Order: sequence, then C-alpha cells, then structure tokens
Amino acid sequence: MAVNLSLPKAKEILTIKGIRLATANAGIKKNGSSDLVLIEICKGSTVSAIYTQNAFCAAPVTIAKLHQGEVTPRYLLVNSGNANAGTGQQGLKTAIACCEAIASQVNEITQAVLPFSTGVIGEQLPLDKVKGAIPGLVAALGAERWLEAAQAIMTTDTVAKAVSKQVKLAGKLITVTGIAKGSGMIRPDMATMLSYIATDAAIAQNILDLMLKKASAQSFNRISVDGDTSTNDACVLMATGKANNVLLTDFDTSDSQTLYKAIASISQQLAHAVVRDGEGATKFITVEVEQGTDTEECRQVAYTIAHSPLVKTALFASDPNWGRILAAVGRSGLNDFDLTQVAIYLDDVCVIKNGEPAVNYTEALGQQVMNQEEIMIRVILKRGKATDTIWTCDFSYDYVKINAEYRT
Amino acid sequence: MAVNLSLPKAKEILTIKGIRLATANAGIKKNGSSDLVLIEICKGSTVSAIYTQNAFCAAPVTIAKLHQGEVTPRYLLVNSGNANAGTGQQGLKTAIACCEAIASQVNEITQAVLPFSTGVIGEQLPLDKVKGAIPGLVAALGAERWLEAAQAIMTTDTVAKAVSKQVKLAGKLITVTGIAKGSGMIRPDMATMLSYIATDAAIAQNILDLMLKKASAQSFNRISVDGDTSTNDACVLMATGKANNVLLTDFDTSDSQTLYKAIASISQQLAHAVVRDGEGATKFITVEVEQGTDTEECRQVAYTIAHSPLVKTALFASDPNWGRILAAVGRSGLNDFDLTQVAIYLDDVCVIKNGEPAVNYTEALGQQVMNQEEIMIRVILKRGKATDTIWTCDFSYDYVKINAEYRT
Repeated sequence: MAVNLSLPKAKEILTIKGIRLATANAGIKKNGSSDLVLIEICKGSTVSAIYTQNAFCAAPVTIAKLHQGEVTPRYLLVNSGNANAGTGQQGLKTAIACCEAIASQVNEITQAVLPFSTGVIGEQLPLDKVKGAIPGLVAALGAERWLEAAQAIMTTDTVAKAVSKQVKLAGKLITVTGIAKGSGMIRPDMATMLSYIATDAAIAQNILDLMLKKASAQSFNRISVDGDTSTNDACVLMATGKANNVLLTDFDTSDSQTLYKAIASISQQLAHAVVRDGEGATKFITVEVEQGTDTEECRQVAYTIAHSPLVKTALFASDPNWGRILAAVGRSGLNDFDLTQVAIYLDDVCVIKNGEPAVNYTEALGQQVMNQEEIMIRVILKRGKATDTIWTCDFSYDYVKINAEYRT
Repeated sequence: MAVNLSLPKAKEILTIKGIRLATANAGIKKNGSSDLVLIEICKGSTVSAIYTQNAFCAAPVTIAKLHQGEVTPRYLLVNSGNANAGTGQQGLKTAIACCEAIASQVNEITQAVLPFSTGVIGEQLPLDKVKGAIPGLVAALGAERWLEAAQAIMTTDTVAKAVSKQVKLAGKLITVTGIAKGSGMIRPDMATMLSYIATDAAIAQNILDLMLKKASAQSFNRISVDGDTSTNDACVLMATGKANNVLLTDFDTSDSQTLYKAIASISQQLAHAVVRDGEGATKFITVEVEQGTDTEECRQVAYTIAHSPLVKTALFASDPNWGRILAAVGRSGLNDFDLTQVAIYLDDVCVIKNGEPAVNYTEALGQQVMNQEEIMIRVILKRGKATDTIWTCDFSYDYVKINAEYRT
C-alpha cells in the first residue's frame, strides 16, 4: 500500500567506514522475522541523539539518555516487536540488563550501549530471548548489513527504509547512510520513530548536535500519520571520522553546509518514506502554509489540516471536498484571524481566494488533483512572511483494520 | 449503528406552550426526505443562542448573530442538506433572502428571523427551493411537530434526537423539550452542532443566557466524535413564559436551580445522543480525568485520549490495548508532569498505578470491560482537585466509509 515507495536496491545503500551492523531473530516478533539489530560505532566517533517528548517515554529511552550522558556510545541495540513501554521498574531493569549483556560480550562498560525498542506497548520485553541472541549478533557484525538492519527494525512498516548519499568535502568523498522505521503512532515531537544515520565524516560534537537538531526539525518533526506521538521515538546521528576530512568545528563553513545538506536530505527522504508507508496510506500529502506571522502558526494550521479525520477520509476518497480543509483552517485557533484574506490551493488549482470560492474553480479541476497519489494542499494566510511545510497521508479502511487488529 | 440510542416515542416528546413548528421537503437533501424546519416563538419570550467558534463560520451563523443582536427572535428557519458555508458573499445574501421570505410571509421584520443550515460545505444554498417551500411551511405550523423537526434537521444522523422533561416551580408544571442533530464534524467549541431547546417557563434574558452557557459547557462542549469543529454549530434556548411562573431573575434561587438542572439534563442527553449516533460509532465512551490542577488540564488530557485514532481504533476492536491510552496521556502536553503519580482505570479495573502496570491487572479483566458497548476510561493525575469529563465514541470502518462517500 506504500505510496510511491519501493525497497531500495542493496547496491544503493553504501557502507560507512567505522560502522558495523548485525541482525538476529530473537523470537520477539510474532511473525518470526528478524527483530534484533546491533550497531557498532568505532572509537573516536561523535554521536548525537534526540528522543521522544512523550512524558510516558519508554524504559529504553530513559536508559539511553542516561548512558549517553556518561560516555560516547559504542553500541546501539535495537529490538522490534516490543516497545518496553509502560513496563515500570521491571522495564528499566530489562533495558539495563540488555545493555549489560552486550557490554560483557564486547568488553565495554554498560554505559557505552544504548538500548532502543519499538513494538507493542505494555508487555515486558523477554530478556532471555534477547540474551540468547547476543553472541550470534556480535559474531555477525559486518559493514554491509544496513538494509538487513532496516528490515529488522520494522513493525507495521511494509517497506524497509534506507537511503545513502555522497558529497565531497575538500576533495574527500564523504558518505552518509540512514535507515528508519515507522508507519503508525507517527507524530514525532523533537525526534521520531527510530532512525539511525551515520557518516564517515569527522564532525565535532556540538556541530553534530546542531546538524541533527536542524535536520530533524525539517524532516522527522514535520510529519504525521495519525497525530499520535510515540513513547519510543529516537533518532541517532553518528560520525566516525574515517573519511579523514578536516574535523568540522564550525557550522557556517561551506564544507559543513555541504554535509549538512546531505544529512538533511537523507532525514527528509526517510521521513517521507515513513509517511509514504503510513498505516493504510494511499496518498502522500504535502501541506504548505504560507504568509503566516511565524512558522509556529503556519505549523499549527498545517497540523490541524493534517490531523482532521474528515480531511483525511476525503483525501482517501479522492473527493475534492475542500470545505473540510476550510473548516480545519477555521478551527485551527489563530488569533485575530481574518478569513477574508485566506487563499487555498489544491496543487495549482485555486479553490478559495480572499475567503471566497474562487471564480474559476470547478469540481472537475479539483477532481483532477484529488485523483493523484501525491497532492499539495497550500493555504495562504496573508498575514506575514513565514512558511511551514509538513507531510502526511490519508486515512483509509486499512488504517482502521491495521490498528484494530494490531495485537491479534 | 447508534449505541444504545433509539427513536423517542412521539408521546414522550412534550409540546411547549408558545412554540409551534413545521417541516417541509424543499428538495435540498439528496435523499428526498424533509429538509426544512420552521420554529415559531411566541411574543414575549426570551431567547438565548450560542454559535460555533470556527473562524470560518457559515453565512447563516453570521446572519443569525447579526439579527439576534437587533431584536428578540420570533422565527428560526433551519435547513439540512446544505451548510451554506464557504459560500462567500453570495451565501450571506442567500441567508438574508431566506429570512426575508419568512418575514414577508408572517408579517415580521427580517431581523426577527434567524437562519440555520447544516449539510455539505461549499455549495450555494438553492434559494428558490427554500422560497418555494415557505408558504406551505408557515401554513403547517403546529405545536406537536417536535419529533418531525428533529427528523428534518438530520444529515448523517441515523436516529432523530429529542427529549422532554417536566419539573415543578412553586406548584407550576414546567416543561422543557429539546432536539438536536449531529453525528460527524463534532467537536463543539462554545456551542454545538444544531440544537433547539424550549421551555414554557418565564426566564429573564440574563438568566437564560447563563443557563445556556452553563448547560452547554457540561454537555455539548464536552463531546467529540472526530475533533472537527463544525462551521455551523448553534444552540438556541427559548423560554416562552406561557407556564405563568414568576419570572426567574436570579440564578441562585431554588426555582432557577431546579429548572437549570432540567435544562442541563436535556442538554446532556442530547449531547450524549449525538455521540451515541456518532458516525460509525459502535461504543459510547466516557473519559474522566481526575485530580488535575484545573479543569482545563483535565479536559486537555481527556480530549487527547478521545481524539487519538489509535485509542479509538483499539476501542472499536474491543482491544484492551491500554498502552495507547498511556501514550496519549503522555503526549497531552501537561507541564511538570510526573508520570509516577498516574493511575488509569478501565471502568473499575486498575491498569496503571503510580505510573506502573497494576499488579492485579490481567488481560482477561481488561477484555471484559472492552467487550462492553459503554466504557469508562478514568485517568487520575494526582496533582490537584479538579475533574473533567467528556464523551466520545470509537473509530470504525464505517466512519471512513461514511466520510469517504459523503458527497457521492
């Protein structure tokens, strides 16, 4: 069902010097596919991470934040099939025990391991299954396993999400590769579902942090499938320095900007892939709100449209029922909102101008746009200079089916 | 599909002295059923009304507010099948012309008529059809037609909503009767879908306003089907004074309190009926949030749960997937939120205590509650003394079907 999203070819996903990965089938996922991923980050790397803002964050998020505050991470352990969320003290103990099991196998301190989980909320993670798989997991570490890893972190995803890009910094070839998972409970807030992005560039910690923050703001933090912020969102950016470029210590140099653009592009492609593979999605929707007083109010209007079940079901039905978009704009809560200034477009078709039905609009014109798989909804507020863009999908029978049957 | 909601018996719906109603089939609705209602309010009545807060309010809402500011309303003209929203200047002209047509037929000034519309957004209301039906409509005015009127204002509703109640004020028998419509685009904000409530009591204007404001705050403003605030919401409360009670001029007397309770009860029954008949609803859900610092934060948490597509699809599936409730509480945006204080109950079954899975909880206990048609989700925040309650329904295949096919 994914909208214009296909499995990347193995040769398109490039290895990153200094990063090795492995996957295993620990028997956590009910469908019997791989459910455990280990990512090894070479010594001397810098690592940045952002996490969900959900107050009920999962046990692994709590532990990952704690560990990351103490040492630079060397290993990321990710399981799918079980979120280890809503699991109380026992869940925290299990998350730590998973890290300990890796640490003792690779002779590292426990804090050098960050745990991540995704899957069903409210069930204890089976520690024994994880432990049993660890020796094989460590033995299997290899540079080539990015696509396998993308596959193993999937839950309701239908397509594995991975993307690579290369840029040159002062003649040095630099590679960036990222993977992500996510399909439902998607409305990231400061972070996202799970995503791991690595580069062989050398980047100072503060610059890496800034790059991740900025890239995710324009990608993972601008998407929504269903408005439900996950308890387990996390995004990690790793820089191994193995490409031997001059360490990037200033964000405003042309080298930093070149690399940042590559990282931002990868983040956005992964974020879009999550929406394209949104639960039950049949359409990929861009909502752009222009000429607001600030980006925050543009985003507020955009998300009100993106989260409206009425707009989303009309999109599913390819019904140019623009009245629902108008109603969503109207209830989005802007102060001193003057609707006589508003214009609404479906792609290039003007539907509303100065708050009135556009003179040249016809149902046939609207229908033509709505029949497409990719649609741009553009709202012009005419009260300032700010713009913001978010991406979402429609709301189909299959969304209900997937989420009604999720635990059966 | 409505949840424990059946058509009221005709004899249960009591007439109100001083109120006459009529319905007609003007040919606005595609399904050929009645789509026009006229309510006549006798001279000497007091009338209060509240309207949608949607900035894109419909033409009839704009005109009704304008007219109501000038004289006490004598006639309410309601059409279903077309919302006259998003219709620009032409829509305003049509709304006024509808009022003029009634006014000239009954020898009143145009401002004495309030227009109301509900139905598809973005199409012009066919004025000729409305005008053509008006002579017959006026001729048909009668006291008994409440249930017919409830039927004629329906759009996607499956059951007509009407309720009556009687109380005694100092020996005088007082009757209150109300009707409402609403099923989708339901998240009223200061007002509701459409509702008309009348009593034969004599109530001073300021007391009537207060009663409507308070009653709707605990009923229409505490429900949500899909989070989408309509462009056309309105609620009118009329007091004809024909019961010859002593004019109520103080809200705090026991007579006022007795009558207020009857009005509040009718408002709540009508609001619940809207949720029970929510588009595609198979469950009636009460969300109660207790021990918050103020009712506003309780409401914020309650609506976050009520609007979560993941919670709503789990409810549809009768799946005790309480992790989704927990995730919704966690993303509801409370300041300084201490999750180790939180408890969550499904009816009387404790699921989370002190932020941890409750020791005695079993999936079987949760399943038993979820199998019911009526479910209470109770969240205890343990950070204050405020409580708030809202009502909502689940999210089913039929919601998608109804809204995907709405205009076909």
